[in-house]
Amino acid sequence: MSLTASSAEEAASSAKTASFHLATLSVQDRNAALETIHNALLEAKDDILAANAKDLELARKAAADGSLSNALVSRLDLGRKGKFDDMLKGIMDVRDLEDPIGKVQMRSKLADDLMMERVTCPIGVLLIIFEARPEVIANIASLAIKSGNSAILKGGKESTESFVAISKVISAALDKTAVPNGAIQLVTARDVIAQLLSQDRHIDLVIPRGGNELVRYIKESTKIPVLGHADGICHGYLTASADKDKAIGAIVDSKTSYPAACNALETLLVQDTALPTVLPGVAAALVEKGVTLRCDPASKAALSSIPAESIQDATPEDYDTEHLALVLTVKTVPSVDEAISHINAHGSHHTDVIYTSDSALAERFMNEVDSAGVYWNASSRLADGMRYGFGTEVGISTNKIHSRGPVGLEGLTIYKYKIRGDYQPTTGYGTGEGQKPWKHEQLPL
Amino acid sequence: MSLTASSAEEAASSAKTASFHLATLSVQDRNAALETIHNALLEAKDDILAANAKDLELARKAAADGSLSNALVSRLDLGRKGKFDDMLKGIMDVRDLEDPIGKVQMRSKLADDLMMERVTCPIGVLLIIFEARPEVIANIASLAIKSGNSAILKGGKESTESFVAISKVISAALDKTAVPNGAIQLVTARDVIAQLLSQDRHIDLVIPRGGNELVRYIKESTKIPVLGHADGICHGYLTASADKDKAIGAIVDSKTSYPAACNALETLLVQDTALPTVLPGVAAALVEKGVTLRCDPASKAALSSIPAESIQDATPEDYDTEHLALVLTVKTVPSVDEAISHINAHGSHHTDVIYTSDSALAERFMNEVDSAGVYWNASSRLADGMRYGFGTEVGISTNKIHSRGPVGLEGLTIYKYKIRGDYQPTTGYGTGEGQKPWKHEQLPL
Repeated sequence: MSLTASSAEEAASSAKTASFHLATLSVQDRNAALETIHNALLEAKDDILAANAKDLELARKAAADGSLSNALVSRLDLGRKGKFDDMLKGIMDVRDLEDPIGKVQMRSKLADDLMMERVTCPIGVLLIIFEARPEVIANIASLAIKSGNSAILKGGKESTESFVAISKVISAALDKTAVPNGAIQLVTARDVIAQLLSQDRHIDLVIPRGGNELVRYIKESTKIPVLGHADGICHGYLTASADKDKAIGAIVDSKTSYPAACNALETLLVQDTALPTVLPGVAAALVEKGVTLRCDPASKAALSSIPAESIQDATPEDYDTEHLALVLTVKTVPSVDEAISHINAHGSHHTDVIYTSDSALAERFMNEVDSAGVYWNASSRLADGMRYGFGTEVGISTNKIHSRGPVGLEGLTIYKYKIRGDYQPTTGYGTGEGQKPWKHEQLPL
Repeated sequence: MSLTASSAEEAASSAKTASFHLATLSVQDRNAALETIHNALLEAKDDILAANAKDLELARKAAADGSLSNALVSRLDLGRKGKFDDMLKGIMDVRDLEDPIGKVQMRSKLADDLMMERVTCPIGVLLIIFEARPEVIANIASLAIKSGNSAILKGGKESTESFVAISKVISAALDKTAVPNGAIQLVTARDVIAQLLSQDRHIDLVIPRGGNELVRYIKESTKIPVLGHADGICHGYLTASADKDKAIGAIVDSKTSYPAACNALETLLVQDTALPTVLPGVAAALVEKGVTLRCDPASKAALSSIPAESIQDATPEDYDTEHLALVLTVKTVPSVDEAISHINAHGSHHTDVIYTSDSALAERFMNEVDSAGVYWNASSRLADGMRYGFGTEVGISTNKIHSRGPVGLEGLTIYKYKIRGDYQPTTGYGTGEGQKPWKHEQLPL
């Protein structure tokens, strides 16, 4: 791991060179490297926490004068109970995941003695730009090594001391493994993002892990493909046939179990006939948990039993807003058509849910809503790589190509076609005179 | 099909709206639409050829004064023997392909009464920018409808009369089908590409089908993901153990069967020990077919038997050049390591081939060369959707994400996650106290 890359070009070019070697390593070699990193970090715990304490001290000062939020300070703290151990456990969890590389996805006989295979392989070089949480660097390095990709890491400046300490340990550890040192590059120089984004010759995919503004800036600033979501404006559509009591549990979970998450509920669409029947119980339970409801006139009228201080009038902007707080937009719709149109127009194609006992209606909703996750009677907060059973999560993609929804290790792979032949000229095959037909016979994997 | 979209925004927005409906159609409805289009084009053959004749007349004038190539004029001509029928047959071929939509790729039980499925679905709206060949519009409209995607088409100006005639027929035909009219939009306004490229809210994927300059311009000008190759600098690596006679057939096919294709051979790397043994026969056969060899000093010295007028000195630029003509760069390398490094540094990650009898060497080459196609003893010209058995080809991608190599219908799809539950809050699951563990049980497809 280079801490001294003198330029973005040097970091990108050496990551590329390393990626060619990394791509050829066996899963045993890649897993052994993860163990070595795990053990080295465990051994260096005191040094890393000491470095982290310096970041924390600066951050606390910044928080005291108001230039940094207390929430950020808390996220910086690697010394919090269980956090360092969780970071270490995460590395071993990635080691234990199935190898995503070398999987044969397709095998066919094009002609006699002419066999084709489609085999998964690493993408190449990832550029990962992430927020301040210092443990992310170990997580991302693990995912990159496991999937055979080089990674260039650029983290938030508030964690610089922690990053440098962790990456020194990882770098020294890699020297004892088959993984080339250049495969994981930490870039600490300031203002280097624009230069990294211009390295489209060497970098194959950018993964921003941060807020909307960062993701939008990156998409506007590079030719390199970007894997990242910009927003999570998740909707629920509550119909009159929903189970009154159970719906409370799912909706309260969606809105309140982690309001700052991208998979939290932001807008509740309510079928007009559900206003007097299902909505009041749901609304009371949400308000009980501290949620403020931003209502349209019809839903507001139906909620006269709710204390006035918990109800506000919805503005048009609310329909396009990711509140990321205990605020929920409520809108009345006359039909599933209006619900679907509203979601496709105002949503962020992340995760949207219908609550109903009508299975035909639910299937229609799931087919017509254009989102990565379309759920029937479930919590939007299921949208998560761990909860989907992927064992890890690179991020949640609202892209329409490559990877959509929670992205596991599979999202860090692509494939290549291998053909093994006997020197046949292609002109010998086809439907013309004297040509042999192609066989195109699918073979078992 | 709108011929009158007053703006790029209007075309993109109505294509998006249509895409939501198109995505819900059964394969029967989509196939029926293809048949209707086929029959309408057949019936309108005379009118279309009359329109095509106008394009041809202008093109022939332009060719006469040198502002257009004769090759382009020939590609414009829909009246050439078999061309119109091929266009019609292409539509029915697409109809007969397996439905790429609604395939369940993954099915798992997250918990009791909480089932997850990953199902293929259309991407949404495609923007396809293509060259002058008029039959492409029917081909692309078919692929889009079959895969449930809306398409905005912007073709080369030389075919305008033909495009308008064909699209009038398609538009009238669509009105008799379940496919919404807005799903296929022809944009005829000039200089509209930049505006279309700014419609990232509505357009999900850009597919440029044209030369390198077009592809590069598009990648630099949009936030929308781009599926396209920029170059096809394909390599062969000829080792001393290659079959002398058979290698001639594969290499001559790779270079000469269609030199203007992106899968044609551009550089032949030769193992030094193969210079006196295998190379002379291969070189003589290539020269016999009219190929000029651009040689490094060592290969030139080994080819003293070849007429001097067929040998030129290679320049450094040749190693990075897609000749697209009967010209082949020849370079001597001492080992497979140098061959692989050269290809990864100078190639375009399209298709590269090793000629050898050593299977371990071949496997190493295929693993380490970072290209969409890596072949052993085969012709680079196999890199083609029809030859791979995909039935059609959207293009050949040198992207590292989503789709790589020849792209069939599958490349026009993505997936969504459907979850069907019983209103369970996520807080009830996990490893904490009182929580139930996730099941994450893979179920058969």
